[in-house]
Amino acid sequence: MSDRNRLKPMAKAASVLWLLGYFLLANPPRLCAQTLADRLGYPPGTKLVIVHADDLGETHAVNAAAIQSLEAGSINSASMMVPCPWFPEIADYAKAHPGADFGLHLTLTSERAYYRWSPAAPADKVPSLVDENGYFHHDWEHNQHPNAKEVEVELRAQIERALAMGVRPTHLDSHQYRLIINGKELFDVMVRVAHEYKLPVFVTRDWFADHPYLQQSLGTEDIVLDHTVTIGPDVSPGKWTDFYVSALRSLKPGVTEFVIHPGFDNEELRAATRERSTWGSAWRQRDFDFFISDQFRQILVQENIKLITWRELASMASRK
Amino acid sequence: MSDRNRLKPMAKAASVLWLLGYFLLANPPRLCAQTLADRLGYPPGTKLVIVHADDLGETHAVNAAAIQSLEAGSINSASMMVPCPWFPEIADYAKAHPGADFGLHLTLTSERAYYRWSPAAPADKVPSLVDENGYFHHDWEHNQHPNAKEVEVELRAQIERALAMGVRPTHLDSHQYRLIINGKELFDVMVRVAHEYKLPVFVTRDWFADHPYLQQSLGTEDIVLDHTVTIGPDVSPGKWTDFYVSALRSLKPGVTEFVIHPGFDNEELRAATRERSTWGSAWRQRDFDFFISDQFRQILVQENIKLITWRELASMASRK
Repeated sequence: MSDRNRLKPMAKAASVLWLLGYFLLANPPRLCAQTLADRLGYPPGTKLVIVHADDLGETHAVNAAAIQSLEAGSINSASMMVPCPWFPEIADYAKAHPGADFGLHLTLTSERAYYRWSPAAPADKVPSLVDENGYFHHDWEHNQHPNAKEVEVELRAQIERALAMGVRPTHLDSHQYRLIINGKELFDVMVRVAHEYKLPVFVTRDWFADHPYLQQSLGTEDIVLDHTVTIGPDVSPGKWTDFYVSALRSLKPGVTEFVIHPGFDNEELRAATRERSTWGSAWRQRDFDFFISDQFRQILVQENIKLITWRELASMASRK
Repeated sequence: MSDRNRLKPMAKAASVLWLLGYFLLANPPRLCAQTLADRLGYPPGTKLVIVHADDLGETHAVNAAAIQSLEAGSINSASMMVPCPWFPEIADYAKAHPGADFGLHLTLTSERAYYRWSPAAPADKVPSLVDENGYFHHDWEHNQHPNAKEVEVELRAQIERALAMGVRPTHLDSHQYRLIINGKELFDVMVRVAHEYKLPVFVTRDWFADHPYLQQSLGTEDIVLDHTVTIGPDVSPGKWTDFYVSALRSLKPGVTEFVIHPGFDNEELRAATRERSTWGSAWRQRDFDFFISDQFRQILVQENIKLITWRELASMASRK
């Protein structure tokens, strides 16, 4: 083998390495990426959690469980469904507790069978969002295409009603992730409205692979959480605690939102959710029970997990 | 005193008697009037009662108490508030029990503080009926004048939604008597809509003295009940049973509607009604407790009081 020939593999290896280096610089792999916590100035490896209760305003049983959890420090953030009948109760509480971290859980469906709600906007202004009886659709079937302009009308109506009733939201999120998972057009509406009202939107990097338009629609100033944890119907009731303990023990650095659904398993909630057990009354009681427990608090201490709110995130991000 | 002078007082007395006789013929006093029961062919002195639960659909606690009362035979009639969040639950029950005597409790107010509802019609079609947040007004203050045309739009929307959801109402009545006590124009709307849908309207002769327009607006074919009994805030909780026992013991002949408000005094109902005790959670439990009691049934037997429904009244009246 001549010297020249001997050099060939080395030159090849060098050019491969160069290309790899270039690629890594241009496309840093996720493992090396800065977390939101890093970008906000926390020491490397810091684990921050938002313990977030969804669906406030839907029933009294959910409001009562959320208020008890907030006051016990078990949850530190929550969001409200403006079109729901019990919204006035939680709006009144929020008005009286202006330091609490309440967002709006933008709502476009009325998914239960025996207990239902309608848009905040006049129904004739959002015809694609309502069924033949004037309620939000149970679900978005193949024949129901929510019109993006009507979605925008409805989101604005929900935010304006909340503001008029004295709520000062700290963030926006989307009931059943409807505005997240249904394409760029609806997500763009959410982002446009959020920017206008200067509110962060709940999005995590975890979702970018499945929904690349999320990243495309967000600006560099938008807060993007690192991870989210939420329990699903695949977890049996007996494994509830195990799921949350495991999620907390293996928590990755960065900011993680635990999306939970506390509620009291009582007559009202059982009746309101009785057509199916998913996100039902017993489910919500299990969430309440775990997050109010001493075990949860002890794990936070043991794992050096700190709590953070949307209000704190927005405040820190605005100073960057 | 001459004979002529002696005759003068007699002639005067005769003419007074004649005038009195003429007046009585032209204006028969209420005591002599035929009752609705008489006109329907019942023997003189018959005492008929509709035991009627109001406010179905308002909360689950009210629906559950009404269903238990209906199935126990303690109440035999009820009416539903179409715009309320729990209407789908009671509509579903009504659809599955087509023989039950359900009317529509036409609703134009949302009188509670922490739990509220909005019109069935699009809010922008009934602006005089809604507050700045899109709910029905708590009350009709001096500066809130419900527009009669908008009232008609809303009543039709409520009836059409009920029909679309499978309810076949037997009668109409008015939540908080708003359509009864607020003048001829609104009552005329109610009667016009009722005639169109061929439904009787809950009115009793007891109200004619205070609201003469009621009688003027009704036709000769309209069913008019004889009396109504309803408990008020003047009755202390300890006197609840006494009030109903006394009302039943002294019941007048004819058809009387007992307007009652059964409900279960639980977390939901206490939260929904907590801003005042009138028609509140404990009040509704007291109504449930009396009408489900053996004492109530025994008095019906002892006083020879028969139950009758709106469906039966309408059927008998149509055959007259």
